[in-house]
Amino acid sequence: MDESNFQNVTANRKVLPERVAQQIIDLIISRNLKSGDKLPNEFELGALLNVGRGTVREAIKSLVARNVLIIKRGKGTFISKHPGMVDDPFGFAFFNDKLKLAFDLWEVRMQLEPWVAAIAAQRADDADIAQIKARCLQVENDILDGIDHLPDDVKFHVSIARSTKNVVIPNLIPVITYSVGLFGELNNNKLRTETIITHRAILDAIAAHDSEGAQKAMIDHLNQNKITLDALRKEGNDTKEACETT
Amino acid sequence: MDESNFQNVTANRKVLPERVAQQIIDLIISRNLKSGDKLPNEFELGALLNVGRGTVREAIKSLVARNVLIIKRGKGTFISKHPGMVDDPFGFAFFNDKLKLAFDLWEVRMQLEPWVAAIAAQRADDADIAQIKARCLQVENDILDGIDHLPDDVKFHVSIARSTKNVVIPNLIPVITYSVGLFGELNNNKLRTETIITHRAILDAIAAHDSEGAQKAMIDHLNQNKITLDALRKEGNDTKEACETT
Repeated sequence: MDESNFQNVTANRKVLPERVAQQIIDLIISRNLKSGDKLPNEFELGALLNVGRGTVREAIKSLVARNVLIIKRGKGTFISKHPGMVDDPFGFAFFNDKLKLAFDLWEVRMQLEPWVAAIAAQRADDADIAQIKARCLQVENDILDGIDHLPDDVKFHVSIARSTKNVVIPNLIPVITYSVGLFGELNNNKLRTETIITHRAILDAIAAHDSEGAQKAMIDHLNQNKITLDALRKEGNDTKEACETT
Repeated sequence: MDESNFQNVTANRKVLPERVAQQIIDLIISRNLKSGDKLPNEFELGALLNVGRGTVREAIKSLVARNVLIIKRGKGTFISKHPGMVDDPFGFAFFNDKLKLAFDLWEVRMQLEPWVAAIAAQRADDADIAQIKARCLQVENDILDGIDHLPDDVKFHVSIARSTKNVVIPNLIPVITYSVGLFGELNNNKLRTETIITHRAILDAIAAHDSEGAQKAMIDHLNQNKITLDALRKEGNDTKEACETT
């Protein structure tokens, strides 16, 4: 999103179904409807917003695509689990240079995640620590069982983010840890062992409310990822050189 | 987005129009279609993806809602300006406690934006500096003309973000500067004058490639915002107390 999109948030030049979609969002907020609550049916919404059912249906479809609503066949339309939060919100899938993207994500992670770990260590309560520990163990089990640990790896980082009690950070972290998924290929056994060790160090520091230790452990963890990225870049350059010399 | 959404990125349990939407995204990437390029028509897409035109139409509608495609009546379907980047990607509109959200956004801004200003000062080229300057002047003109300066204020921060040459940062900044729009009410003349002064200090430091100065100037700018937030919180508490004592 750049500023031209940002301005759209308040733009009034929207077509009718988009305006109705915004009115439905306003209705959800004003009626304080929560995840899982049922939306009034198309007929009621049409009467309420003074538009035809076709327009209501269009607006609902666009809110389904934006992950605000979910349609359960034969049951009605409901508020989704995390309304308005979408997969890949920044459109990273559309970036052509994935290696540049991975480096830039890493740069942002390096600025955010050690700080997140530090404030998590200050603010985590017993329930937070129990959850971080459970997810740390889950990643270890995945690795030992030889199954893909990346989904649980993201969950581990999100549980640290939640411990900060800041409502914005748990939304940011999965987006920037997206980079984790960008370099599965170089994942060898040495790196997996290092993941277990550095995750443990982060967990232990947070559990001990050791802010400085948590920050340092997260930096170590991210530096490990950087080694992978550098190796991938070198691999890419070697391939390029090989192609240029043949 | 929390981890359950993140996993959906790779989930295969999607219904047909969603799967077709993903196939269209894959097509855009593999054919290297850019902003403004025309998408093949419904008939071609149906043949290519081996699905009916109704399904193609559903998939296109969902990609319009996700800001991947735009439909120009009578002309066809085109790749949007910033494909996949949506308004309010984290669903902040659905947070009930806007004051808590504003404080949490401020906490994240304070961690990110001084750093962004510092690396912008290192990496900005002459074109970047010219753009930051133009936007700084635009905000000043808005304020002096008594018109809403917030859209140009966000643009000012985005132009600093772009100077970092990091592709992720310009996407993050409008989302976290969302907080700027959350406290228009306390904006008085004193604060507007301070905005002009601190924006100028940020611009001057970046133009001089003074990394430390840019960082410091951004911290001053954000501390100003914090004063506004604290005043809003106090106002809220006073109202609450007044209600409780009556």
